[in-house]
Amino acid sequence: MRVLVNNKSEDYKVISIDDDTGVISAIDQRKLPFLFTRINCLNLEETCKAIKNMVVRGGTLIGITAIMAFYQALIQYDQKGNDFQRFVIDSAEKIKSTRPTAAALHNHIEKILDLLSPIDTVESSKLIVRDYLNKIITETINHFTLLGKQGAKLVQKNPTNILTICNAGALAGYEIGSALAPIRFAFYENKPIKVYICETRPQLQGARLTAWELHNEGIEHVIISDNAAGFFINKGEIDLVIVGSDRIAINGDFANKIGTYTLSVLCKENNIPFYVAAAKYNFDSKLSNGNSITIEERSIKEMKTVLSVDSEGDRNPKRRIIHNIQSPSFNPAFDVTPGVNVTGFITDTGILEQPYSESIPKYLKIC
Amino acid sequence: MRVLVNNKSEDYKVISIDDDTGVISAIDQRKLPFLFTRINCLNLEETCKAIKNMVVRGGTLIGITAIMAFYQALIQYDQKGNDFQRFVIDSAEKIKSTRPTAAALHNHIEKILDLLSPIDTVESSKLIVRDYLNKIITETINHFTLLGKQGAKLVQKNPTNILTICNAGALAGYEIGSALAPIRFAFYENKPIKVYICETRPQLQGARLTAWELHNEGIEHVIISDNAAGFFINKGEIDLVIVGSDRIAINGDFANKIGTYTLSVLCKENNIPFYVAAAKYNFDSKLSNGNSITIEERSIKEMKTVLSVDSEGDRNPKRRIIHNIQSPSFNPAFDVTPGVNVTGFITDTGILEQPYSESIPKYLKIC
Repeated sequence: MRVLVNNKSEDYKVISIDDDTGVISAIDQRKLPFLFTRINCLNLEETCKAIKNMVVRGGTLIGITAIMAFYQALIQYDQKGNDFQRFVIDSAEKIKSTRPTAAALHNHIEKILDLLSPIDTVESSKLIVRDYLNKIITETINHFTLLGKQGAKLVQKNPTNILTICNAGALAGYEIGSALAPIRFAFYENKPIKVYICETRPQLQGARLTAWELHNEGIEHVIISDNAAGFFINKGEIDLVIVGSDRIAINGDFANKIGTYTLSVLCKENNIPFYVAAAKYNFDSKLSNGNSITIEERSIKEMKTVLSVDSEGDRNPKRRIIHNIQSPSFNPAFDVTPGVNVTGFITDTGILEQPYSESIPKYLKIC
Repeated sequence: MRVLVNNKSEDYKVISIDDDTGVISAIDQRKLPFLFTRINCLNLEETCKAIKNMVVRGGTLIGITAIMAFYQALIQYDQKGNDFQRFVIDSAEKIKSTRPTAAALHNHIEKILDLLSPIDTVESSKLIVRDYLNKIITETINHFTLLGKQGAKLVQKNPTNILTICNAGALAGYEIGSALAPIRFAFYENKPIKVYICETRPQLQGARLTAWELHNEGIEHVIISDNAAGFFINKGEIDLVIVGSDRIAINGDFANKIGTYTLSVLCKENNIPFYVAAAKYNFDSKLSNGNSITIEERSIKEMKTVLSVDSEGDRNPKRRIIHNIQSPSFNPAFDVTPGVNVTGFITDTGILEQPYSESIPKYLKIC
């Protein structure tokens, strides 16, 4: 991804691994945008800690990091006195325990264990995992590139102002991202664009990460408070809303960052197109509708405190208290938007339209 | 209002004036809830500074502070070498220049100048302003008490969970407040209540001031992020929404804190009653609808920074940076909600219902 360092635009990998040493280097997302720094994970333990502590975040990126962690363990495997079979199983367990509910992470680790079975030599195992990593990285980039180009057609058809929420960008999705992919590709095609970013309380992924990404790319944007989205949508200033998605049922109901449902209702009320960027792994073919999606209730610390710096030059962001301390709070991380509120799902093969109970199964079959 | 100090509930005036010395004492709202402290304004200059710097805030309270400031000037008038007539005019101008768009402040000062005309002795002028101050304070308390009792009937009729935004409470409305008045009176009548408070970015008046007020009164409450309101309304957890109002047109369109419009749309979508607490001075009989209401665009500093403390014991709150520093932002302070989205206006004489173009003019005639 493009990052401005001392006003020079440079290309940085969100995460990478050294094939010889196995050292993994990742952008530390916990302190962005106040401090842009990379963290070196020297071994499996450190990589697991980085996944757990959210140095890396977003389903796609967590998944790729998990594969890299496995590869790292194999590169650094020390034959002396170790049972290789045991080592493979233990490494898989360590990685899986970092984020028990991250779907892509668990799918990748299970897939690797399948590929390695029966477990052969260290060298052959290393090659299998390296090939799997490269395959997933290539697939991810290709997939989001196709999704971005399909979405860019939609952006080209509409006027300029696009509203989004949270960070479904390069930081979360390896290099390109989902909701930001159509915006990126339309921008590369010289479409004049202005992105309204909902700051996305409580974690402010919009105001911290999406704003930072778009600033780095030179894409015009403006941050608004989450409760101002209705004002701008009602005023006619927004031409198009594009959001990401965490999990999509086959009737089009989908879970995404808290606040997404509200945006869909505002769009419905004001006849504004509401699109969902949908990577193929976000569809859950076993889910008939959104009713059974469990909403994660996260720590109230995320509500009561916020990442902040004392001044523009301060490179040491800290979480500080912003609420009345004695008051309780609720912190649902996601909400479910009914499929009927969705104008279309942007996928790698095109836009899925209503009725979703037909278009989504059709898409999933051709994947 | 009730304030818990060292776990003891005590009664504090939001603002008061000493009739002998003219010293005005006010709760400093800039640092709440992290530091509860009063500020003494020793003379007119200091009181004007307190209005300008938002030591006091909210239309009703600003209005009462303005009258007190005038009274203070007269108490402290020094005959030596001063022209009293000039002094009265100058004092009025000083007060008016503090908040050029605060309607109640300007109305009160104009009214006082009328009452004093022709300007007589210092003593008689002082008595006139003192009487006007006492009259307005009594009227304000009576008015919000009646509004609160009317609203409490509505709360009694509904289940428990009420959602509100911003701070239309004792801090803003001298002692009782508008949107919080029905909640207070229903609570006094032993109705079990739980208040969902939208934190109200960017200034967090909900999470700082309303949460503090309700905590002090022992009223059960919970803070939610603004973008979680839709989640709870859609889930069926909210039985009633009550918001304040800054300006109401005679067709029921009204301006209030940014985010209010979105709540009204969410209520409409989910068939949840949406009520507006409406002090009589909030109605603007010259305004046929909300189209011509100008929305104040406030400093982007309010978006980029937030009042915060380092720890629970920290009594020195500071504004700190929370956004990507290079990104611009928009900060509209209010939005306009169409009257058709309003279930009813809670007033001192009862609930006004649709069609508002009939019920509001009828109410204004009987005021």
